[in-house]
Amino acid sequence: MIIIANRVDLNCDMGESFGAYKIGLDEEAIKHISSANIACGFHAGDPRVMARTIDLALAHGVAPGAHPGFPDLLGFGRRKLEATPEEIKNYVIYQVGALQAFARTRGTVLQHVKPHGALYNTAAGDIKIARALAEAVYSLDKNLVFLVLAGSELERAAREVGLRYAREVFADRNYNNDGTLVCRSEPGSVITDSAAAAARMVEIITTGRIKAIDGTSFPVRADSICVHGDTPGAINHIINLRRTLSEAGIAVVPMAELVG
Amino acid sequence: MIIIANRVDLNCDMGESFGAYKIGLDEEAIKHISSANIACGFHAGDPRVMARTIDLALAHGVAPGAHPGFPDLLGFGRRKLEATPEEIKNYVIYQVGALQAFARTRGTVLQHVKPHGALYNTAAGDIKIARALAEAVYSLDKNLVFLVLAGSELERAAREVGLRYAREVFADRNYNNDGTLVCRSEPGSVITDSAAAAARMVEIITTGRIKAIDGTSFPVRADSICVHGDTPGAINHIINLRRTLSEAGIAVVPMAELVG
Amino acid sequence: MIIIANRVDLNCDMGESFGAYKIGLDEEAIKHISSANIACGFHAGDPRVMARTIDLALAHGVAPGAHPGFPDLLGFGRRKLEATPEEIKNYVIYQVGALQAFARTRGTVLQHVKPHGALYNTAAGDIKIARALAEAVYSLDKNLVFLVLAGSELERAAREVGLRYAREVFADRNYNNDGTLVCRSEPGSVITDSAAAAARMVEIITTGRIKAIDGTSFPVRADSICVHGDTPGAINHIINLRRTLSEAGIAVVPMAELVG
Amino acid sequence: MIIIANRVDLNCDMGESFGAYKIGLDEEAIKHISSANIACGFHAGDPRVMARTIDLALAHGVAPGAHPGFPDLLGFGRRKLEATPEEIKNYVIYQVGALQAFARTRGTVLQHVKPHGALYNTAAGDIKIARALAEAVYSLDKNLVFLVLAGSELERAAREVGLRYAREVFADRNYNNDGTLVCRSEPGSVITDSAAAAARMVEIITTGRIKAIDGTSFPVRADSICVHGDTPGAINHIINLRRTLSEAGIAVVPMAELVG
Repeated sequence: MIIIANRVDLNCDMGESFGAYKIGLDEEAIKHISSANIACGFHAGDPRVMARTIDLALAHGVAPGAHPGFPDLLGFGRRKLEATPEEIKNYVIYQVGALQAFARTRGTVLQHVKPHGALYNTAAGDIKIARALAEAVYSLDKNLVFLVLAGSELERAAREVGLRYAREVFADRNYNNDGTLVCRSEPGSVITDSAAAAARMVEIITTGRIKAIDGTSFPVRADSICVHGDTPGAINHIINLRRTLSEAGIAVVPMAELVG
Repeated sequence: MIIIANRVDLNCDMGESFGAYKIGLDEEAIKHISSANIACGFHAGDPRVMARTIDLALAHGVAPGAHPGFPDLLGFGRRKLEATPEEIKNYVIYQVGALQAFARTRGTVLQHVKPHGALYNTAAGDIKIARALAEAVYSLDKNLVFLVLAGSELERAAREVGLRYAREVFADRNYNNDGTLVCRSEPGSVITDSAAAAARMVEIITTGRIKAIDGTSFPVRADSICVHGDTPGAINHIINLRRTLSEAGIAVVPMAELVG
Repeated sequence: MIIIANRVDLNCDMGESFGAYKIGLDEEAIKHISSANIACGFHAGDPRVMARTIDLALAHGVAPGAHPGFPDLLGFGRRKLEATPEEIKNYVIYQVGALQAFARTRGTVLQHVKPHGALYNTAAGDIKIARALAEAVYSLDKNLVFLVLAGSELERAAREVGLRYAREVFADRNYNNDGTLVCRSEPGSVITDSAAAAARMVEIITTGRIKAIDGTSFPVRADSICVHGDTPGAINHIINLRRTLSEAGIAVVPMAELVG
Repeated sequence: MIIIANRVDLNCDMGESFGAYKIGLDEEAIKHISSANIACGFHAGDPRVMARTIDLALAHGVAPGAHPGFPDLLGFGRRKLEATPEEIKNYVIYQVGALQAFARTRGTVLQHVKPHGALYNTAAGDIKIARALAEAVYSLDKNLVFLVLAGSELERAAREVGLRYAREVFADRNYNNDGTLVCRSEPGSVITDSAAAAARMVEIITTGRIKAIDGTSFPVRADSICVHGDTPGAINHIINLRRTLSEAGIAVVPMAELVG
């Protein structure tokens, strides 16, 4: 068997607290990941949380990235908003620019940008929105890595715009044979067994193929694995995943080291 | 008589529209000023308005600056909010950083930062808040000019932090003999006569002294004059002021050319 | 010819200012209408504006109503947000309840509720959303009139819920032969000639039929005409419409007098 | 010894979650209190949370009340905002009105109104703000009970306006000899011993006097005790307090039963 890859990035959403509201076990999750997607104040996060989360990432040697979303704190950015590509482009420049400023005041730069929630999902299937996002990121800093759903319009937009990108897979989700995620409302969409999920990730990274829910398989190049850090159980999933990756000889490194 | 100065900057608030709401005659005022204070989305402005206002300033050769305020759109940033210096520092990094991003995507940089409304007034009399502002600006870009009320704690904070600064005077306001503005609720606080206001500015710039409302005078070095652009009458005041300055041989230039 | 009706309501959006931002010529428009749709703080309006707009309506003998929208001030409620029926139901109870409180403190009650912008358009074609709206209104006050697009899912939901409703037509818009409005992006969608628009309204009210853009006609019972009050030209359209209605012997009365 | 009273109300802040953000152990605390102060969407809470919290209170036989605050979600309403009495009056009508609507749709009415955080503290020492609050509450419903800091300007305003009111004391706080709370930054401000706090409450209720931190005492009539429900420890404090009250023969009843 040819080993496709022996390195991968682990990315996790962070900095989604807001004012007196705390969400996520950032201080725990940060110990086990390589890239942090930091909320920028639209769907979650606020200026103080952003400052602290950048500091937290730097203290743990984790590469910071921006996680812009729709301007919908009430819906946590999970609800589609029919904004125009021009509006979205400006929302992304605003949000990522604000986080870049916190990075700059700490003497560093952002590694990547990953759209959040409904913005991510909308753009994954809509090339106009995806292109607005990619253009915004490219205009802010040509060296930023765009973190995308493997095989989606986000990936296509990154290529068209000439933006560096990393493709992510989801540790706890099953896929349809066309590369889309099995909808959460359908049976088998989520993989709850920690060991099975971890073994699956090793298989994807080393073989370059994903086994779909119907038994067929399709090729994928996974640069990053998306993990969650919002519950004690989720933290354990990350720890198990890291151990399994390590046992398989797969190193965890920030995504920027994996993309051209 | 010794001529103290023959150059001055004209600064004006801009980009305070929000979504469907339009405020200010930016397209008119921009023709007559040298520095634009652009709202950053907290007290006014939104990402699209910011993008357009940066473009407007560049199209007219006007130097763009950031105009951060309290997070109080409902009160237009005119109401004091008891935020801590740490909160305010982060609010300023966030807002100025977002506007810097729009400048960067247009291949330019911001010239200056001027706090807005209640944030400006609070900081003018509170060295802790003033220092939080100055430190935030300095950490973002050492070359930014901090636009301050002449003689206030804002000026003191800029000096302490080692930040470049420009001192502004108000074309349409009378001063007390301690350098503070006569409160708007008192008689004679506002100078409504356009010609008188313009002549007064020439006198301040050329003599380096302000005549206070009690008839005494005190020294001031005015690098910039604050003008308004929210009504047709206000636009006429700017036009009259420019003509009077020109007749007196005083050139209008962006503040960055006037400070060390 | 049988005269179908000799009375009609004129409704107009009001109270859409926010803080320092002013929108709409409410003080002018209020003189010529019979029902005011007052924004409730989500897409536009704020508590002070709501208080003043209720006072304005009462001072002119105009029946006040609520105009709830999506929580999207930045988009002025014109962008569809994928909220659930349960979320929308609660948004409407919240917004209408707040305006009812201002009415109550003035010793009066609201006459009607009309959804705003994208919420209106979404519900007009989605029975689940329409029903959530109708149920919210019914639960707040059984006597409220629901102002709906004639022939839409909003009308159907009102009937199903047992809520009183009034059907509106648009003075300045052309219709397709299925009762939907011609999309603004298509030629002929908007009727700009004031006299033609007014004559058309008289025809609709007296004959009970609308002539569609393709020359065919379909029946409609119009209880209310939606007019605009945001520009001097729009105010003139209302004045012309009222004169034409008067000459045709059609009285303008609040919608509650026209529905069962 | 004359027993001053053998009944008291226990009030607790509730419904302060927002969207995806959860704060407070409402489902636990609700079992042990008699009055719930429900956030209204300005400093905390949202329409769905308000609906659910009203339902929760009703399911447990707890009297619902409104807990309006400053429009500052980012600061959780804990930061003073220099709003005018007119602005504040309208903010209170808006917020309480919205919650009244949720009560009305459930066939009930609110029992009381308690201002939140910085609004409470500001009004406790500022009669103009206190009067704006009392007038707003009175205009909404004459039967509402205004929950006030015993001896403060809030109590004075309630009397002047003719509004029913209940005076509260804090289970876990020490007092100065002028009736104000010992500032949290000073030693001894907070009583952490659960048994001591409970015994102290029994003493206050039965004797009508509070022992101040300097050893002197002053009279107080306590209608309600303010308790917290945000941590497991806080829930235990409430349980201990209820047991101690019960053993002392003091019944816990909603405040409306205690005031004229």
